[in-house]
Amino acid sequence: MPLQRRTSRSPLALLPLALLAGACMTCMTCMAAAAELSPADAERHAQATYREYFELLSLPNDAISPEDIRKNVEWLEQAFRKRGFTTRQLPNDGKPMLYAEYPGSDPARKTVLFYMHLDGQPVIPAQWAQKSPWTPVLKRKAANGGWEEIDSAPLFSGPLDPEWRVFGRASADDKGPIMMMLAAIDALKAGGGQPAVNVKVILDSEEEKGSPSISKVMQAHRDLLRCDAIVIHDGPMHATNRPTLVFGNRGAARAQLTVYGAKVPLHSGHYGNYAPNPAQRLASLLASMKNDQGRVTVAGYYDHVKIGEADRKIMAAVPDDEAALKRRLGIAQTDKVGANYQEAMQYPSLNVRGMAAAAVGDKVANIVPDKAVAEMDLRTTPDSDPAYLGQLIQKHIERQGYHLVKGEPTDEERSRYDKLASFSYQSEGGEAAGSQIDSPVGQWAYRALSDTFGAKPEPVRIRMMGGTVPTAEIVRVLPVPFAIIPLVNADNNQHAANENLRMGNYVSGVRTVYGLMTQAF
Amino acid sequence: MPLQRRTSRSPLALLPLALLAGACMTCMTCMAAAAELSPADAERHAQATYREYFELLSLPNDAISPEDIRKNVEWLEQAFRKRGFTTRQLPNDGKPMLYAEYPGSDPARKTVLFYMHLDGQPVIPAQWAQKSPWTPVLKRKAANGGWEEIDSAPLFSGPLDPEWRVFGRASADDKGPIMMMLAAIDALKAGGGQPAVNVKVILDSEEEKGSPSISKVMQAHRDLLRCDAIVIHDGPMHATNRPTLVFGNRGAARAQLTVYGAKVPLHSGHYGNYAPNPAQRLASLLASMKNDQGRVTVAGYYDHVKIGEADRKIMAAVPDDEAALKRRLGIAQTDKVGANYQEAMQYPSLNVRGMAAAAVGDKVANIVPDKAVAEMDLRTTPDSDPAYLGQLIQKHIERQGYHLVKGEPTDEERSRYDKLASFSYQSEGGEAAGSQIDSPVGQWAYRALSDTFGAKPEPVRIRMMGGTVPTAEIVRVLPVPFAIIPLVNADNNQHAANENLRMGNYVSGVRTVYGLMTQAF
Repeated sequence: MPLQRRTSRSPLALLPLALLAGACMTCMTCMAAAAELSPADAERHAQATYREYFELLSLPNDAISPEDIRKNVEWLEQAFRKRGFTTRQLPNDGKPMLYAEYPGSDPARKTVLFYMHLDGQPVIPAQWAQKSPWTPVLKRKAANGGWEEIDSAPLFSGPLDPEWRVFGRASADDKGPIMMMLAAIDALKAGGGQPAVNVKVILDSEEEKGSPSISKVMQAHRDLLRCDAIVIHDGPMHATNRPTLVFGNRGAARAQLTVYGAKVPLHSGHYGNYAPNPAQRLASLLASMKNDQGRVTVAGYYDHVKIGEADRKIMAAVPDDEAALKRRLGIAQTDKVGANYQEAMQYPSLNVRGMAAAAVGDKVANIVPDKAVAEMDLRTTPDSDPAYLGQLIQKHIERQGYHLVKGEPTDEERSRYDKLASFSYQSEGGEAAGSQIDSPVGQWAYRALSDTFGAKPEPVRIRMMGGTVPTAEIVRVLPVPFAIIPLVNADNNQHAANENLRMGNYVSGVRTVYGLMTQAF
Repeated sequence: MPLQRRTSRSPLALLPLALLAGACMTCMTCMAAAAELSPADAERHAQATYREYFELLSLPNDAISPEDIRKNVEWLEQAFRKRGFTTRQLPNDGKPMLYAEYPGSDPARKTVLFYMHLDGQPVIPAQWAQKSPWTPVLKRKAANGGWEEIDSAPLFSGPLDPEWRVFGRASADDKGPIMMMLAAIDALKAGGGQPAVNVKVILDSEEEKGSPSISKVMQAHRDLLRCDAIVIHDGPMHATNRPTLVFGNRGAARAQLTVYGAKVPLHSGHYGNYAPNPAQRLASLLASMKNDQGRVTVAGYYDHVKIGEADRKIMAAVPDDEAALKRRLGIAQTDKVGANYQEAMQYPSLNVRGMAAAAVGDKVANIVPDKAVAEMDLRTTPDSDPAYLGQLIQKHIERQGYHLVKGEPTDEERSRYDKLASFSYQSEGGEAAGSQIDSPVGQWAYRALSDTFGAKPEPVRIRMMGGTVPTAEIVRVLPVPFAIIPLVNADNNQHAANENLRMGNYVSGVRTVYGLMTQAF
């Protein structure tokens, strides 16, 4: 394979680098920078880690068990140390996080902190089509379209099929990416080179619990973790499985709205048409918050959303197959919040995630309910935080004539106010975060991916993903630009039964991490 | 006590009757018509039946048990027979109804069929503040405002307190009224007179199950039951406890509306603002059906409601204390369907009796629900039946752009129609029924009550009660004018734990039934 020096490159710089490459083929010892990693070598280094991967997947990692977390941390600490990393367990109330730093740090280079997590979602073993979620198995696509288990021996020694998948809890979320990094390091060491950036790694131990401790632990080790950029390897790649860069995520807040009727449920014969129905009133209130196109009509809700022309172009370039998506979801039309899926995710949402008044189905009764509840989640954006959105909704409710109470209204309140409701909101499960697509980090990551996988088709750039990951909690402590670079197949059943990793993604993930580590910025 | 002949009387006829009365005091044997019943004599005859009343209340009567129903029918059959009635058990799939006819039927007189029911609501004994719902107890108001149990011996022999109450299942609904009739017969027989109308009685055995069999059983004995008027002794009197006449009741229909979203619940981060939210859409749809004042805005919904000036005057005369009612319900304002409570009950209702989408509370999840359900009950009126109202709602839903499906939509339907819903409706729990307030029967009943209790304050006349009783099922077979004449206190906890009868109502009930039986029409 041809070896090439890696430096920060623009297309214009390609020619001199290509010339240099030939010169260096005869001069291995002088190379401080790392060589290109061919797909075949990436596969070879990946395959060499598959036994470790299976071993790691055999360790239960639900953060509900500190003992399990400790076993994972110890295993991972050994894995990083034997590759030359210095490591340190960061205490976290019995569930330590792991810090690892690659040797040869050079102040002249930029420092990148790679964030991944070692814990996994809880499992319900009975839902899994295998002996245990903690006993990884190899599967291939069966003739009937499902997955059939096959002997895993060829995975460790024979020729590989990129369409094979390893099934097991955390196979994709997020132990797969950790293993890809270890394999990328193996490849780097085998090439005898040095990374182009200083490499620091932090492995969260409670990501699946909402990363309640990451800010605190990072704050306690701020100097240790100091960096110029943060790369987050978590979550799924774009559905096309093309290299994917994500520059932000919405946050999540919850809100609860209760509309009160009479003190107790009433006979609907004797009181229907007389006692106001809180389910009906809740319906009217919710209806007043959105129009028929799904756009929020609460005054000011979208006021802080700013999308420039450059952003729109980047979003329009995302190869979303919306026709296929609609078919898969079973909907003929989407809400008309954005011109396309990506644009829709740039806006804060107001979603009724649950609604209840009295009973439906078998337990239904002929009553006028005494109250009606709507549970909402608000997906927030960096410019529209929970307090801003919550206040707008609250004002909107009051403008509809409601008197807001805390908990059950008193007799005095009931006699004074026709319309009574309670409304509360709070941040939950993470804040929104955004990083400039064209920041130095954004440009660096883009170069690394296009250098590794080619400039056409270009890597998928997602300005802001709709879901919530703990980016904000991480960058709060270290306010540097970041990029979320997912490595695993989109259909990995993350968080559910039968989580899996496509082995072709393992190999491309090794190439991605290698490409990032060897790309200077 | 002065004895008076009873015939059909108008105020103008009072004087000659008063004169006749004196003449007859010395001529007991010639009297075919019955004497007036003084309050003291009514109380004496009532008290003489209290042991029987306790015995009857000791018999469980949930129609879920044919064996229990049979025991009640046998006990009642004996009670009617020993008072001279001819009786007949009307077969009904193991749960017979009882027919009883007072002897001396005269074709020259009008015949009144008295309907009551012998079955009762199910019980949850633990909810009762006494040893058993089937062991009646006597209670009096305690200093703390609650009810305290007292020795029942004085009930059978000592001086009575009208504020005492007997607690037990069916004490008010509807064994109390049956016993009042038996006591009224005792009084009649003691006076040696004959009733002014031919008296037939039918005791339903499944009223609390929605009277599923009354029409069929009555149809099978149509000739036996033939009559000129039907009097229904069931339900509570007006809250003032003034003599009460009810000339109709709303019917009940149920409807279920389901709005469909995506095929499965979706991650609200990735799909909030994109996949239409069916809870939100259901809210908008329900909001489109009623205005802020609680009036139905479905086109045509109230079109068949006709209320004349005479009706309005009668309704305005009902002594409802709406200020107290609102205080009790805990509401500051009522829906603005009618000018007052009575008027509101003349309109069909559209009541959301239950509503659900995904989960609320502990089980809430950050999803876009896949469907949302509203359970509705429509209270119908004689001119606005379930089919009429259901069709109007269905058309309304379609006019909002919905394509209606039966059950879950198919993929084809999902791809073709943006707005998908299913809607069904059907009659449930009884039809509406109405009888002219000024029909001969209405006038006759009014005279009986005002003769018995005085013309001022006048008896309460309710044009149509909001709840549903099986009047329609009864009059369908025998289409004669009817009057519902409730006899029990409004706060009797009907259908709930701690059902009770105010003993003053037992005595006034004896007077009412006596008054009806001795009033010609």
